Amino acid sequence: MMDTITIIGLFAATFTTTALLPQLIKVWKTKSTKDISTGMFILYCGGVLLWFVYGVYLKDLPIILANSLAFIQGLIILMFKAKYK
Amino acid sequence: MMDTITIIGLFAATFTTTALLPQLIKVWKTKSTKDISTGMFILYCGGVLLWFVYGVYLKDLPIILANSLAFIQGLIILMFKAKYK
Repeated sequence: MMDTITIIGLFAATFTTTALLPQLIKVWKTKSTKDISTGMFILYCGGVLLWFVYGVYLKDLPIILANSLAFIQGLIILMFKAKYK
Repeated sequence: MMDTITIIGLFAATFTTTALLPQLIKVWKTKSTKDISTGMFILYCGGVLLWFVYGVYLKDLPIILANSLAFIQGLIILMFKAKYK
């Protein structure tokens, strides 16, 4: 059995990892990115890439997986932002 | 002296904690939130709130601080989103 705090951590990771998905779907549907900040997604992608390196260093699979997924989503949003100015 | 991996972790935390700031400033200046996904910021705020609880449980100050700041920024963006539909 997992303890309460591990379950809270797993929920936290699930929420922050899937957070970018609604934004990604919205941008994909509307092809509109005017109100989205490029700076935000550059900082975000840089940050989760560093978390990924941190996870590889610690050999921590949840950190590696969560931040890989977050990085890919952030990168796709940045590509949409570059395409639909 | 801090080791390399701790420095990488601190940079990672700084990037992901300050990521929302450019978005917050953009929304504040333009008063336009059409392209921003409400779902993204609800998931994000829910996630960092759970990370905050996780940090309190573990008595881990960096997790508490980083996620408090992230939560406040996400909440302000959500309030702008509700105000400027």
